[in-house]
Amino acid sequence: MRRFAADRARRAVAASLRGAASRSAAPSPHAPPPRHPASPMGAAAMAAAMARAMSTAAAGAPPVSLDTINPKVLKCEYAVRGEIVTHAQNLQQELQKNPESLPFDEILYCNIGNPQSLGQQPVTYFREVLSLCDHPALLDKSETHALYSSDAIERAWQILEKIPGRATGAYSHSQGVKGLRDEIATGIAARDGFHASGDNIFLTDGASPAVHMMMQLLISSEKDGILCPIPQYPLYSASIALHGGSLVPYFLDEETGWGLEVDELKKQLEEARSKGITVKALVVINPGNPTGQVLAEENQKKIVEFCKNEGLVLLADEVYQENIYVEDKQFHSFKKIARSLGYTDDDLPLVSFQSVSKGYYGECGKRGGYMEITGFSPEVREQIYKVASVNLCSNVSGQILASLVMNPPKAGDESFESFMVERDGILSSLARRAKALEEAFNSLEGITCNKAEGAMYLFPRLHLPQKAIGAAQAAGTAPDAYYAKRLLEATGIVVVPGSGFGQVPGTWHFRCTILPQEDKIPAIISRFKEFHEKFMDEFRD
Amino acid sequence: MRRFAADRARRAVAASLRGAASRSAAPSPHAPPPRHPASPMGAAAMAAAMARAMSTAAAGAPPVSLDTINPKVLKCEYAVRGEIVTHAQNLQQELQKNPESLPFDEILYCNIGNPQSLGQQPVTYFREVLSLCDHPALLDKSETHALYSSDAIERAWQILEKIPGRATGAYSHSQGVKGLRDEIATGIAARDGFHASGDNIFLTDGASPAVHMMMQLLISSEKDGILCPIPQYPLYSASIALHGGSLVPYFLDEETGWGLEVDELKKQLEEARSKGITVKALVVINPGNPTGQVLAEENQKKIVEFCKNEGLVLLADEVYQENIYVEDKQFHSFKKIARSLGYTDDDLPLVSFQSVSKGYYGECGKRGGYMEITGFSPEVREQIYKVASVNLCSNVSGQILASLVMNPPKAGDESFESFMVERDGILSSLARRAKALEEAFNSLEGITCNKAEGAMYLFPRLHLPQKAIGAAQAAGTAPDAYYAKRLLEATGIVVVPGSGFGQVPGTWHFRCTILPQEDKIPAIISRFKEFHEKFMDEFRD
Repeated sequence: MRRFAADRARRAVAASLRGAASRSAAPSPHAPPPRHPASPMGAAAMAAAMARAMSTAAAGAPPVSLDTINPKVLKCEYAVRGEIVTHAQNLQQELQKNPESLPFDEILYCNIGNPQSLGQQPVTYFREVLSLCDHPALLDKSETHALYSSDAIERAWQILEKIPGRATGAYSHSQGVKGLRDEIATGIAARDGFHASGDNIFLTDGASPAVHMMMQLLISSEKDGILCPIPQYPLYSASIALHGGSLVPYFLDEETGWGLEVDELKKQLEEARSKGITVKALVVINPGNPTGQVLAEENQKKIVEFCKNEGLVLLADEVYQENIYVEDKQFHSFKKIARSLGYTDDDLPLVSFQSVSKGYYGECGKRGGYMEITGFSPEVREQIYKVASVNLCSNVSGQILASLVMNPPKAGDESFESFMVERDGILSSLARRAKALEEAFNSLEGITCNKAEGAMYLFPRLHLPQKAIGAAQAAGTAPDAYYAKRLLEATGIVVVPGSGFGQVPGTWHFRCTILPQEDKIPAIISRFKEFHEKFMDEFRD
Repeated sequence: MRRFAADRARRAVAASLRGAASRSAAPSPHAPPPRHPASPMGAAAMAAAMARAMSTAAAGAPPVSLDTINPKVLKCEYAVRGEIVTHAQNLQQELQKNPESLPFDEILYCNIGNPQSLGQQPVTYFREVLSLCDHPALLDKSETHALYSSDAIERAWQILEKIPGRATGAYSHSQGVKGLRDEIATGIAARDGFHASGDNIFLTDGASPAVHMMMQLLISSEKDGILCPIPQYPLYSASIALHGGSLVPYFLDEETGWGLEVDELKKQLEEARSKGITVKALVVINPGNPTGQVLAEENQKKIVEFCKNEGLVLLADEVYQENIYVEDKQFHSFKKIARSLGYTDDDLPLVSFQSVSKGYYGECGKRGGYMEITGFSPEVREQIYKVASVNLCSNVSGQILASLVMNPPKAGDESFESFMVERDGILSSLARRAKALEEAFNSLEGITCNKAEGAMYLFPRLHLPQKAIGAAQAAGTAPDAYYAKRLLEATGIVVVPGSGFGQVPGTWHFRCTILPQEDKIPAIISRFKEFHEKFMDEFRD
């Protein structure tokens, strides 16, 4: 009886939590709130007491252990900040304590696309605007004009006008400040030549939470699959693992410069389907991470048509859209491609991820980003909105910065020329660094390396001698992880083993950013070269 | 045969993605990378083709619908930004178009603890420091001294020194900048009188992602339960739903000022266990949300002992720690209580959530926050770290702000006096507003309201006439949702129906923030009063 009453109460609470009306007879008004039922008695209480005794009997065991936590968490991996980085951090501490203890004097973090950690300076105009928006009282003071450019001041005013109550310290709309989303949409429309709407923008703390949000929406169980490139950025494998789905790999073709072939997509899709997996979406990273290729327009058209024909959501990771280093390639958003093929909102669900962390701005620490979603039904959009609203909103400084990078200074603005000097300086230097590193890698025995057409990485292939593979096996590690560890210990250079991104079985790679400052590149190349030659001498078959 | 080979390849890739060595024979060095196998043939291909045909046959149906998305997303609710807020936003648009169309001239958002959206000004010192850290070039200029206080300039220097390379635009350590975490730990130690370590701090974008992270770690299936107060802040029910666990409710006792009784905890725990639910953790919100009570020290001790004896993780939501409005209550962190009982790291896993969104600072839009985790094994901590690292880091401005609110200006600092004036002005005004609203609610027929001892909310109980309940039923909605809708349409005041937080079945409440600016409170009270009296007149039995 007691159990029944409690059950009913719980069901009613659950219904109430769902926002549904509990239509059972209500107590008369003014009655005191019913107190929770009295303490349990009888058989149920005894059973519960036993359960409790069992629990306290195990008092020696910690309440939380690897055996009791969510196995999806255990399964997830994220190599970009994995074992090799922990090892590097330990070496860095050693170096601080005893600078002479290691054969190098600094750790060079080439494991992660984090430009400002390696000395890239932030773009002045963007930071002026952020600084003013953080402390709007400055805008009323005449001294401010001595410290800030006049167009930054003007822009800060415009931004504050878009924020209700000018309150940069208030939670915004769950999708982000409407006026900032509209400004981003204007930037997208100018980029693509097709309409964009602020209503389709969801501002997020960097692109990662947006990717998680889509995975959470699309994945119900391991029977739901997401087509991902191999090699891939491990956010995707990690997010799919955390949400309990199946990563359906498609292989990029290293021989054709990491080409993305629709035949391969079809083959892998069909194979996954034949195993009973419902493939929900295709992830395309363009420009590629870790692979650095920039897709050709014709290729993108085929990919869009593939998604349209197969009923897949196209998840377009376009965070490197500003990072293009070759004359013959250009960035085209997948939305532009879809619209240029005549596809509308009704034809194709498409999500474009963008971030303030990449591009020439490289503002990783600001955690700004957005996703533009098109082609979803109003009911599904409402679900996406609901999930966004549980986290209230993304950080407003990141929101402001996202609106700035999508609408930088224009010709005629006071800051325009200096802005362009900073912007082009960073991008052309990145292009030179990419080329220098690629050439250096390709000059070495046992390394082949595709060009970085875009993004921030090279993904050289290691053709390791059998002896080196044997040494790795003896050390209980993957050959590329073994190589990366030896590289770190000899030179202080941190790269991520290819096994963290996925690769064709039996091939070995590493990912290396192109981000060390240009004046350091020659020294890095010579340190790398020296290490590699010794390594090959040691292990040559 | 083909299928077998493909399977093997996929397993190898999966192993490689997990970072394990694929120890199968590697191809000889210098061989070109093996291309993915040729297109499929035979029976498997036919099956796949059929599956594809079936998929394209359904081309009319959208690839993503409510039937195909993750049912956990569908199940999750978040009333704080639910239906009533959407309705309010629509009314606001109507008001902008036609100011005379409604019986009020502004919408008053009392649905959410968002002080700056209702006119609270940010604390000057904090914003000065943030502004300088956003644009460090200012620190080298003499004109800066005309605009910023000297201790804010000094503090900005100190903070930049803690950030590697002074790079506020770089991803930080996944837990947050080490120096800032150490500073937060210093603040915690000063608050509690017990040691705290920066190694135990995980900085997050507000407290919500930290709560999600813990739920993700603890919940594997619906067999895993989390004890949550009823009423509760719906982040908890939403997060438990999204992670597929079971919310095990315990009822706060409205009669004793929302008392939290350990007998009730025991009863609900035993009942959940008797149903085969493994209860992993206890959520306590102190000061309470939506209920505003501040727990007594003796009560907290019993709660800590309960968790220790029952092997539960104590998840302590302490985001309102600065918001205490009564003389006879004080905030004590659960960690302080545990340590004062002699419990160490070995006795009890404990997580304390804190945020820059609340307190006197109310910097919701900055999305700063942290969790302090103690009592977890190194292996489990590593898993938490891994999940944090997938998202790279929280926003650095929010990190800086978290370090500031835990270490505000001290006596002797240039800004100290003006800082204290701002701080105490906000807190004492909040206390007056809480009292004025509470008294107003209690003066009305059919409303009883506990004191807001802390936090930012009142949670009055509506003793609704039977006729009003009937009218709600006829409208197909919960009585408190019906009341809130009528209130909004008559006055522009937005409150959240109690059903969004959970309540004892058959009782009805709403949550109302105490945040409207003080000069608006009398008008709000009179608008509310007028509405309520009319409502009671309309429905009196």
